[in-house]
Amino acid sequence: MNETKDILQQVQSGALTVDEALLRLKLAPFEDLGYAKVDHHRALRQGAAEVIYGEGKTTEHIAGILTSMLANGERTVLVTRLSAEKAGALTGRFPLDYHADARMGIVGSMPKPDGLGKIVVATGGTSDIPVAEEAALTAEALGNEVERIYDVGVAGLHRLQARLPQIMEASVLIAIAGMEGALASVLGGLVDCPVIAVPTSVGYGASFGGLSALLSMLNSCASGVSVVNIDNGFGAGFLASRINHMERRA
Amino acid sequence: MNETKDILQQVQSGALTVDEALLRLKLAPFEDLGYAKVDHHRALRQGAAEVIYGEGKTTEHIAGILTSMLANGERTVLVTRLSAEKAGALTGRFPLDYHADARMGIVGSMPKPDGLGKIVVATGGTSDIPVAEEAALTAEALGNEVERIYDVGVAGLHRLQARLPQIMEASVLIAIAGMEGALASVLGGLVDCPVIAVPTSVGYGASFGGLSALLSMLNSCASGVSVVNIDNGFGAGFLASRINHMERRA
Amino acid sequence: MNETKDILQQVQSGALTVDEALLRLKLAPFEDLGYAKVDHHRALRQGAAEVIYGEGKTTEHIAGILTSMLANGERTVLVTRLSAEKAGALTGRFPLDYHADARMGIVGSMPKPDGLGKIVVATGGTSDIPVAEEAALTAEALGNEVERIYDVGVAGLHRLQARLPQIMEASVLIAIAGMEGALASVLGGLVDCPVIAVPTSVGYGASFGGLSALLSMLNSCASGVSVVNIDNGFGAGFLASRINHMERRA
Amino acid sequence: MNETKDILQQVQSGALTVDEALLRLKLAPFEDLGYAKVDHHRALRQGAAEVIYGEGKTTEHIAGILTSMLANGERTVLVTRLSAEKAGALTGRFPLDYHADARMGIVGSMPKPDGLGKIVVATGGTSDIPVAEEAALTAEALGNEVERIYDVGVAGLHRLQARLPQIMEASVLIAIAGMEGALASVLGGLVDCPVIAVPTSVGYGASFGGLSALLSMLNSCASGVSVVNIDNGFGAGFLASRINHMERRA
Amino acid sequence: MNETKDILQQVQSGALTVDEALLRLKLAPFEDLGYAKVDHHRALRQGAAEVIYGEGKTTEHIAGILTSMLANGERTVLVTRLSAEKAGALTGRFPLDYHADARMGIVGSMPKPDGLGKIVVATGGTSDIPVAEEAALTAEALGNEVERIYDVGVAGLHRLQARLPQIMEASVLIAIAGMEGALASVLGGLVDCPVIAVPTSVGYGASFGGLSALLSMLNSCASGVSVVNIDNGFGAGFLASRINHMERRA
Amino acid sequence: MNETKDILQQVQSGALTVDEALLRLKLAPFEDLGYAKVDHHRALRQGAAEVIYGEGKTTEHIAGILTSMLANGERTVLVTRLSAEKAGALTGRFPLDYHADARMGIVGSMPKPDGLGKIVVATGGTSDIPVAEEAALTAEALGNEVERIYDVGVAGLHRLQARLPQIMEASVLIAIAGMEGALASVLGGLVDCPVIAVPTSVGYGASFGGLSALLSMLNSCASGVSVVNIDNGFGAGFLASRINHMERRA
Amino acid sequence: MNETKDILQQVQSGALTVDEALLRLKLAPFEDLGYAKVDHHRALRQGAAEVIYGEGKTTEHIAGILTSMLANGERTVLVTRLSAEKAGALTGRFPLDYHADARMGIVGSMPKPDGLGKIVVATGGTSDIPVAEEAALTAEALGNEVERIYDVGVAGLHRLQARLPQIMEASVLIAIAGMEGALASVLGGLVDCPVIAVPTSVGYGASFGGLSALLSMLNSCASGVSVVNIDNGFGAGFLASRINHMERRA
Amino acid sequence: MNETKDILQQVQSGALTVDEALLRLKLAPFEDLGYAKVDHHRALRQGAAEVIYGEGKTTEHIAGILTSMLANGERTVLVTRLSAEKAGALTGRFPLDYHADARMGIVGSMPKPDGLGKIVVATGGTSDIPVAEEAALTAEALGNEVERIYDVGVAGLHRLQARLPQIMEASVLIAIAGMEGALASVLGGLVDCPVIAVPTSVGYGASFGGLSALLSMLNSCASGVSVVNIDNGFGAGFLASRINHMERRA
Repeated sequence: MNETKDILQQVQSGALTVDEALLRLKLAPFEDLGYAKVDHHRALRQGAAEVIYGEGKTTEHIAGILTSMLANGERTVLVTRLSAEKAGALTGRFPLDYHADARMGIVGSMPKPDGLGKIVVATGGTSDIPVAEEAALTAEALGNEVERIYDVGVAGLHRLQARLPQIMEASVLIAIAGMEGALASVLGGLVDCPVIAVPTSVGYGASFGGLSALLSMLNSCASGVSVVNIDNGFGAGFLASRINHMERRA
Repeated sequence: MNETKDILQQVQSGALTVDEALLRLKLAPFEDLGYAKVDHHRALRQGAAEVIYGEGKTTEHIAGILTSMLANGERTVLVTRLSAEKAGALTGRFPLDYHADARMGIVGSMPKPDGLGKIVVATGGTSDIPVAEEAALTAEALGNEVERIYDVGVAGLHRLQARLPQIMEASVLIAIAGMEGALASVLGGLVDCPVIAVPTSVGYGASFGGLSALLSMLNSCASGVSVVNIDNGFGAGFLASRINHMERRA
Repeated sequence: MNETKDILQQVQSGALTVDEALLRLKLAPFEDLGYAKVDHHRALRQGAAEVIYGEGKTTEHIAGILTSMLANGERTVLVTRLSAEKAGALTGRFPLDYHADARMGIVGSMPKPDGLGKIVVATGGTSDIPVAEEAALTAEALGNEVERIYDVGVAGLHRLQARLPQIMEASVLIAIAGMEGALASVLGGLVDCPVIAVPTSVGYGASFGGLSALLSMLNSCASGVSVVNIDNGFGAGFLASRINHMERRA
Repeated sequence: MNETKDILQQVQSGALTVDEALLRLKLAPFEDLGYAKVDHHRALRQGAAEVIYGEGKTTEHIAGILTSMLANGERTVLVTRLSAEKAGALTGRFPLDYHADARMGIVGSMPKPDGLGKIVVATGGTSDIPVAEEAALTAEALGNEVERIYDVGVAGLHRLQARLPQIMEASVLIAIAGMEGALASVLGGLVDCPVIAVPTSVGYGASFGGLSALLSMLNSCASGVSVVNIDNGFGAGFLASRINHMERRA
Repeated sequence: MNETKDILQQVQSGALTVDEALLRLKLAPFEDLGYAKVDHHRALRQGAAEVIYGEGKTTEHIAGILTSMLANGERTVLVTRLSAEKAGALTGRFPLDYHADARMGIVGSMPKPDGLGKIVVATGGTSDIPVAEEAALTAEALGNEVERIYDVGVAGLHRLQARLPQIMEASVLIAIAGMEGALASVLGGLVDCPVIAVPTSVGYGASFGGLSALLSMLNSCASGVSVVNIDNGFGAGFLASRINHMERRA
Repeated sequence: MNETKDILQQVQSGALTVDEALLRLKLAPFEDLGYAKVDHHRALRQGAAEVIYGEGKTTEHIAGILTSMLANGERTVLVTRLSAEKAGALTGRFPLDYHADARMGIVGSMPKPDGLGKIVVATGGTSDIPVAEEAALTAEALGNEVERIYDVGVAGLHRLQARLPQIMEASVLIAIAGMEGALASVLGGLVDCPVIAVPTSVGYGASFGGLSALLSMLNSCASGVSVVNIDNGFGAGFLASRINHMERRA
Repeated sequence: MNETKDILQQVQSGALTVDEALLRLKLAPFEDLGYAKVDHHRALRQGAAEVIYGEGKTTEHIAGILTSMLANGERTVLVTRLSAEKAGALTGRFPLDYHADARMGIVGSMPKPDGLGKIVVATGGTSDIPVAEEAALTAEALGNEVERIYDVGVAGLHRLQARLPQIMEASVLIAIAGMEGALASVLGGLVDCPVIAVPTSVGYGASFGGLSALLSMLNSCASGVSVVNIDNGFGAGFLASRINHMERRA
Repeated sequence: MNETKDILQQVQSGALTVDEALLRLKLAPFEDLGYAKVDHHRALRQGAAEVIYGEGKTTEHIAGILTSMLANGERTVLVTRLSAEKAGALTGRFPLDYHADARMGIVGSMPKPDGLGKIVVATGGTSDIPVAEEAALTAEALGNEVERIYDVGVAGLHRLQARLPQIMEASVLIAIAGMEGALASVLGGLVDCPVIAVPTSVGYGASFGGLSALLSMLNSCASGVSVVNIDNGFGAGFLASRINHMERRA
């Protein structure tokens, strides 16, 4: 609220005329009105990374944003949907750690985990791993401890059950699956923590690019399950981190 | 093959001219050509019931077909998709046993089970029971022992697991579920018998009238699963009976 | 884990033979194996209500379940998707508080709020209120303070902005909208708490029964947003409560 | 009407026989009948450019049309959906200004703006810019002043608000967005001018090639919004120009 | 801008402290910040009616809003999607003129047309007339002269051509059609004014509730055509009025 | 061409001024220009009936059109999609023959068949009969001999084969089926005449209101098959009649 | 019927035993039973070409079939969906005339037209020409005179009208269009001959690969229109030829 | 059950403490609880092959799994969805028999057929052969005699009928077809064995990647038909083998 207050005080003191104040109020960015200081609060509390969506941006564009962010003191910057080619071109210029599976680059150091508990990232199959890694790396970059439990699809319930103790310990669970997407319902029925379901485009034929898994997850008969977009590992990791950093509000 | 053979023998003996034979061959029903005596073989082997699809038929229409079938010696006739109103109108005139849940009427006596094993009919929820009863009654009327295991949806895996011993004994398994339809995948991964999946229109919103469960089942990551139309309990029961009556062919 | 442990101790002591133990292990409900004591933990921590899904259940069915639950000491039971007719029939027999808007009945007393903060339930229009009330009442019955902010659709941004101070205070935000479903994205960009988006079937024409809002919410360009099924107010309220009761895990 | 009138006058004067007149009337282009002199009126009033849809046309085909148009005195010709390769091949032969982003070539000089006001072209993200540039260049080539306001997606409402003064000044507003397409609703609720919404195919997963943004925009709860085809920047620019050149009709 | 200015002046004069001003600015409706005085400007310029969306509102709800609007001096109020039953109940209490076809009630007197020209409302068939009347009455209530040209579907091109002189005079054209929705393209190719296409749900089978006409109109090969939601006569009338009241902006 | 010629001759003779001629040409119905005398030619050649689409028209509306048509000398008028209620109300006032199955009323006498051959109308099941009757009656009313071959679905190929001699004699074949719509392909492969396929909305679940049969028919691997809208018996009968009345053109 | 008759005569004469005859009847191709001599009748009457669907066949496969057909005396063979590469490889070995636009090869000489009249092939745009050429060449190869009328889309009604005299002369009309597919309805309303509509995949965005044009054509408000698959020029040409060779049947 | 029993016996004997037993029970794979010894039973009874899904796995990944399986004594391993490139790289290192059509590699020797009868694999066209070969090879590798009957689409019923004797002998029938998918219904009506329908993505336009055949098969009016995913030859072969190895259960 300080900028608005500042304007008002200058009006009070006569340093600004009413019309000048009017103009400045119109131009002031929204957060200055006091209700959207979101980003700064979050950064302080979570040591949160900044994120660049790499898809459709040129290498130069990404480099420019990175330079500006690092100059502003960001310690961790995620670049999502980053192709190997662009990653190669950026590597020489930035301290970039590239994860080919997840198509994600991480510039800077990873923060220490400071969440309420562990975020468990589970996948139905091995083909879902790229999406899972995007989720897991995102959560780690936002200050979470992450446990990966891959290839525990419901058609092999014994593999899933062998990992249940770890799954049950999750503070937040990210369930990632393509094809029939049943993992979310099965896990959702077992755990008592929030479950974020990520449908993937893994499959063929009547999977229709992830539609099958998406609908399946939306119709989950388990309570406590919500869904993000197909292949949206980043979104799941980001939301899981938010939930894993919940704290008491006055 | 007898009718065609009969015609040929009459040509041989001179009882039919070539042209008369030609005409009769053209008009002869297909099965007379020897490759489609399906129904009769099946009836002998299975004591199979006949079936009338009741939807869109008037009570009088159904009554007429029933009368004709019974006159032909059928011992068991199923009337599917039969409304309570029509059932009431038929009850006085036929020995009709009406199952309101399944919207199915059974005229005559049930045959003794003579299949290879038990057909298990499992549902995800209680709302799937009407479809399940249609499947179960169909299978029973076709000479199968049926075990009903209802309300074992995957979101409550412990309920499902409590019934696993019976499920594992199935000769054929019918998995019936709406919403996310995950039951088929989970059971398909546990059993080693053929699984017939029946999506139901149970659900709301993004279940889109059963589409969600249908796609989910078609994309099952479990092997040994095939799918019939949404809410098609009859089709599942019929096919299960066929599989449960498999026998060695020369 | 106590039941399994109990069985093992009885084997150790000779009170059970190995085969008897084997049988009891097979039949034991899943949670007895130690990894699914979900419900009991939750009940203790949240004073959580039990839930009956009323759709497709007869009045007698609901009454039976209610009787059993109350006998088991449940203090709060929600009956969702409960028609006014069934509610009328149940009122004489149970201490039922019926909310016609939400089509929800609540039996017993509401628990005291014990969550981390306030759950804010926001809707785009007045037609979304039934879904919102289902969400809000669910959350309240699970021990949350709820603030209702209705009719703040994005086409009237000033109404939304007038309520921003309350919205910004949310611990968890439930954004409910039909038609174009933009509310989730707009609010998702403003707040720094988890956002649960609920598409509603409000609309006509190309809203296709909620599909438009559903897709819109899944594609939200705001981070921290996840989605539940169309019109699934209960699911949103349940998940919001889970998030609002997050606590540190060892 | 002059050609038809001319024919009639020649009949009156005897210069044409009735049958010759009949033949010429049959062959005369529609506009000669007096109700479709669209193109000429518009050209006079707007200094409007001609347009060639480049997709699926060979370089030679485009060159031929260009030559003919320039010979007919066109001062500005737009070539839309023009690949860089074809543009390269045409550059030597025509005064072609190629805009790679918009995949649009402009031959000739831009007309002076003569509309009622400014056309504002706003996008939700940077990936929507190619479509926006197609719209903006089209509008400029048709004689409009255009203001570009890019990357003001609703998830960052403060960026949008910082640009509101310019947005509010729009005579016609073109709102371009992919993903959830909420920009159209939010802007539609703020401005009092006609809003043309352009869904883009930007997005992934459940954006289904622009379907999500399309449905969202069609269901906009804001009044005064209409929609053109996915990625149809040209159509939006053309229509915006028409609206921006409205004038009193007798 | 007066309310914000007023606040600033009170700060200047000392009538308000800075903190009091801060609070009032936060709570002030958005338009007070100077960029959203939309409604008032429009009301002055157009004599525009206010609108109540009647669907899903109770009679009492509608009556309440009406009372408040009339008390605020509104001269014309539209109630859209108003059932005959509700209209009957309101008639005694308000000067309501009910149009059963359009399911629209108009309270108060119609304003004088003050637009740039005539709005032509054309339909493909007679079944589209309810949607057309909604559009036409909306436009009239917002101060436009409207010409109705109904049942000029493209399969009877001669009927359409007989009305071409009137169609060609349109300042804005609203093209309303169900089934294949071709009217928009045909008219869009003939006229040189903005065309607003309204798909209707008229049709059966593969019209899929208006989807066929909707897609057809979005893909119109004619320039200058944009589309609103299926059956959205109101939206078309409102936008047409906006376009028909375009004026020069500084 | 006579009206246009007439106008020209009057110009030639001086009976009309050029401007009067101009006006009359503008207003003259399209067919007067000589290329659309369709209806009259057809009436002469086929003794064709006129058609009223009854859906959504009031009884009075239908009565008015009927009166006008009969006054104009029409001998046969079809009223399609006519409810039993409206038919009852019209019966007293017109010589109406109502076919409840087809929901079609026929006013006047049926013409003598004068086509090239027989039109065969075949259906897959008994539930398709209403659509088939609409097709058959339409064709009869337009002067065709029609043979009905109902309930010859491909799952009972012997029934179909028993009727093959009649099917093979068809001049035009109308194949009507719901569910999987395979009849069109099977018959299309057998006959050498044009096949018009009519998908019906008969079915449930994944038939999606006729979509399954529609897609199936469009993808027919048999040549010579084209498709009309779901349940469009009238359209099929009309087109079949056109084909059955083909004649040599100069 | 000769082969069946031949078998019967051999039975009569004793040259075949009944069982040998039975076996031969079983193996005999269907047409020998007398009801499917389609191909031969057609060949005699139309001088019809044979067709090879080239998609997914190797060059060697196509060459083999061609060799066999030419050996059997075929004078004209069409190879549809033939890539330029395969055409190049076949050219040296067969008298192949390759039409790159239509992706069609024609081996042998074109037959003389012997139909009832002209087949007119009309397209909405120039991008539809490949499909149109496939239709036109097919029809020509099957013995029809074809008139091509391209680029007469409904948005430029005057171009269409300039060609109306030729269109009106059509014996059969093939209307080919992508995008909104309105051409079929407009032409269907003008002509009195059968219209075969071919949707094309030309378009972008909400044309969804031809779905828009397909639905539009299926919902045509013009009578006498039927539809074939998207881009199915061959099917349209084949069916048009069948209709154009209609003759009186006993 | 032996592992669980073993644990219990060790508890009984004092070799394990209760807590150690508890831990081992938690970690024991699911099948050790006695209800999921599926794989081993099947291997003994069927000589069944193991399967590796090759899609999305690297050559090294596949080689690793192969090595491990062969080391475990597997005699036959299928690698499905294996590209020619990867097959080439594996050939030197394993006794791999690569089937390019089916994109399937088989390592090791084929088992002897030991099923109840023959599995017949039928296709509608030659383009469906890759899917058919995947099904046939799978069934052969699982110990079944397979008869391939290709290119018997329903549009050429005589070709299908010529092969009917072999088709009628099937113990299980796999019906594979793209486009309209009618083969399943036609064959389903002729045979009395279970039919597994496999829709393929063969087709274009409105086949929508196999959706048309899928819906068609799900809606089959023949009883005894069930459906697997589009192009899922493996799943069909696997399920057919299961059915063909049915045996009496106690």
